[in-house]
Amino acid sequence: MKKISILGSTGSIGTQTLEVVRNNPDSFKVIAISGNMNIDLLHAQIEEFSPKYVAVYDEKKAMELRNKVDNSSIKILYGMDGLVEISTLEEVDILVTSVVGNIGLIPTLNAIKAKKTIALANKETLVTAGEIVMKEALDSGVKIIPVDSEHSAIFQCLEGYNIKDIKKLILTASGGPFRGRNKEELVNVQSSAALKHPNWSMGKKITIDSATLMNKGLEVIEAKWLFGVEAEEIDVVVHPQSIIHSMVEFIDGSLLAQLGIPDMKLPIQYALTYPNRIKSSGGGLDFEKYSSLTFEKPDRKTFPCLDLAYEALHLGGITPAVLNAANEELVLQFLDNKIGFYDIPDRIEKAMNKFKGIKNPDINDIIEADKITREYIKINNFKA
Amino acid sequence: MKKISILGSTGSIGTQTLEVVRNNPDSFKVIAISGNMNIDLLHAQIEEFSPKYVAVYDEKKAMELRNKVDNSSIKILYGMDGLVEISTLEEVDILVTSVVGNIGLIPTLNAIKAKKTIALANKETLVTAGEIVMKEALDSGVKIIPVDSEHSAIFQCLEGYNIKDIKKLILTASGGPFRGRNKEELVNVQSSAALKHPNWSMGKKITIDSATLMNKGLEVIEAKWLFGVEAEEIDVVVHPQSIIHSMVEFIDGSLLAQLGIPDMKLPIQYALTYPNRIKSSGGGLDFEKYSSLTFEKPDRKTFPCLDLAYEALHLGGITPAVLNAANEELVLQFLDNKIGFYDIPDRIEKAMNKFKGIKNPDINDIIEADKITREYIKINNFKA
Repeated sequence: MKKISILGSTGSIGTQTLEVVRNNPDSFKVIAISGNMNIDLLHAQIEEFSPKYVAVYDEKKAMELRNKVDNSSIKILYGMDGLVEISTLEEVDILVTSVVGNIGLIPTLNAIKAKKTIALANKETLVTAGEIVMKEALDSGVKIIPVDSEHSAIFQCLEGYNIKDIKKLILTASGGPFRGRNKEELVNVQSSAALKHPNWSMGKKITIDSATLMNKGLEVIEAKWLFGVEAEEIDVVVHPQSIIHSMVEFIDGSLLAQLGIPDMKLPIQYALTYPNRIKSSGGGLDFEKYSSLTFEKPDRKTFPCLDLAYEALHLGGITPAVLNAANEELVLQFLDNKIGFYDIPDRIEKAMNKFKGIKNPDINDIIEADKITREYIKINNFKA
Repeated sequence: MKKISILGSTGSIGTQTLEVVRNNPDSFKVIAISGNMNIDLLHAQIEEFSPKYVAVYDEKKAMELRNKVDNSSIKILYGMDGLVEISTLEEVDILVTSVVGNIGLIPTLNAIKAKKTIALANKETLVTAGEIVMKEALDSGVKIIPVDSEHSAIFQCLEGYNIKDIKKLILTASGGPFRGRNKEELVNVQSSAALKHPNWSMGKKITIDSATLMNKGLEVIEAKWLFGVEAEEIDVVVHPQSIIHSMVEFIDGSLLAQLGIPDMKLPIQYALTYPNRIKSSGGGLDFEKYSSLTFEKPDRKTFPCLDLAYEALHLGGITPAVLNAANEELVLQFLDNKIGFYDIPDRIEKAMNKFKGIKNPDINDIIEADKITREYIKINNFKA
């Protein structure tokens, strides 16, 4: 029985994590959960899973929840301290970091120091502070198990193998809802169109990232830190069916790939059961249904965010944090129909040019870079 | 530096094994080789690789070779004793069993007893005597590393994983030169057409087996013994591009696949370097070239040999040895244009019906079953 704490239990990955727990009640016990604004869902999760601890980032929302929950023995926490507390509980084995955005960084770092295994679904942790986080994990002897389907695929391919035998990691990309379209067709595209992802049901932010290919760019940065390879050793190939979730090419020319139906519950479950596997009713592949798997090059001209991510990785320092913060703010603006599709890469590039120079940043530099980038994006009207 | 003995160095796998050695002179040293009729090639291999021992099954051919080889310190052996001697040499680390046919069985069993790692390319060893051979390997603590691209793929996918977590092995098949044809079109087909394999350059016997799908059937039997699974847990899927060499589906619904260009040197090299990998100039995958990977069900009606192999596996005992011996003889007759394409499965089935009943056969029962089946196929005119 593994004891689990879930940072961000009301989001897409969080609810699917709880579904895995629901399907395997003998394997997992939920000790703590956390949410932010969706108090009703959090309340329902408390009723079903009886966690001992619940953290709500917003203090008022925490009080609101306290008034709803009858069982007074359930500890309700709030603020960053609350998130850190449920990430470092003595009795917890695994922390699932399924919160979206930069807010996951400090709790994750604290969980690593407390020697908790990390099931990592929060992209920003490695994108913004990969070097610091991986060093801390190495020092603490903590295993970071990726939940993202692409990194889980690579993680599964590498099991039993030596990192030094990697020639190349090949991240597959669905290509998103705008695959095959060109820049002229997309310049006036609305967020409603971008939210129609062909294969995966995900949160809004990541779905827009999938449409711009920034999602793949962020995954390239994550992959560098997770697997200790160079940017040049990470390729992206568009594979519209999303059946091959990613691949590893070894130095001898042999490749391993992990395949499966596009269902996040599979990598979530693997992260929780690692190094074991447990029976699952779903999964498998019907090759009559998936009778053709296709591959094509990503269109880097139409989707410049991918190259921006590679550039941020090359520049290093605070630049990936700037890229990430700018992107997060710009995606919100795009979802609100305040900016156009290509304002996202254009303004990210401007932010990357504006804030640079700090090499070997510490965690405070990264948090500061995140903050000033967001302000810059919010207040600047970017007149031509 | 690994020290290698090659049983069958003049055949397709044998010569490619020597090419791997040629490309990696610092990693491997050839201690012994063996051949049968191609004395000139054996002589050239002696000149290039300076083995200490050479075995020729045919005594006269061995004498012929002795007269050609100037270096009298090279020991030239003959007969089954010669094959056994080069398979059990004190100084050898790995025996590559690349000889074709039943002749590989006794030397391989002796090599296992002498605790040599086996790079297994000889199908018949496991097809005819899988249970005995795997038990001997288990008792001796010997690793059997498959060279066949399909089994090597599964072996690579399983590295780091637990056999008990396998739900299904999925062997891929190119479908051979007659994929898409029906029984009526094939009833009068000639061996010359069957020898035109679309993807792999292989020996004649295995190329015909690929046309009848018996090759895949024999691989199913091999896979059962190599990986300790049941026949029901082994599927065959036709994948005409031969890029995915085989797959493993785990109990949680996740699949791993091994991919690569169709080049036997890759699995040969992996068998020799296992558990390590060494750099190779070839390999890798150009996804612009292989932009579509397709899958279809095998046509079991047009190619009945596949089901015959499953049936032999279910019947067990000596039946797989009967299937194999009958097939070997019938392929020779087909190559000589003495019988038709469908005489192969028809007569195999007759042989399987005629010789059965011995459960838990010992090695002598298997050798005897092989012998009587061959006689039955040779002398019977199978009048309707």
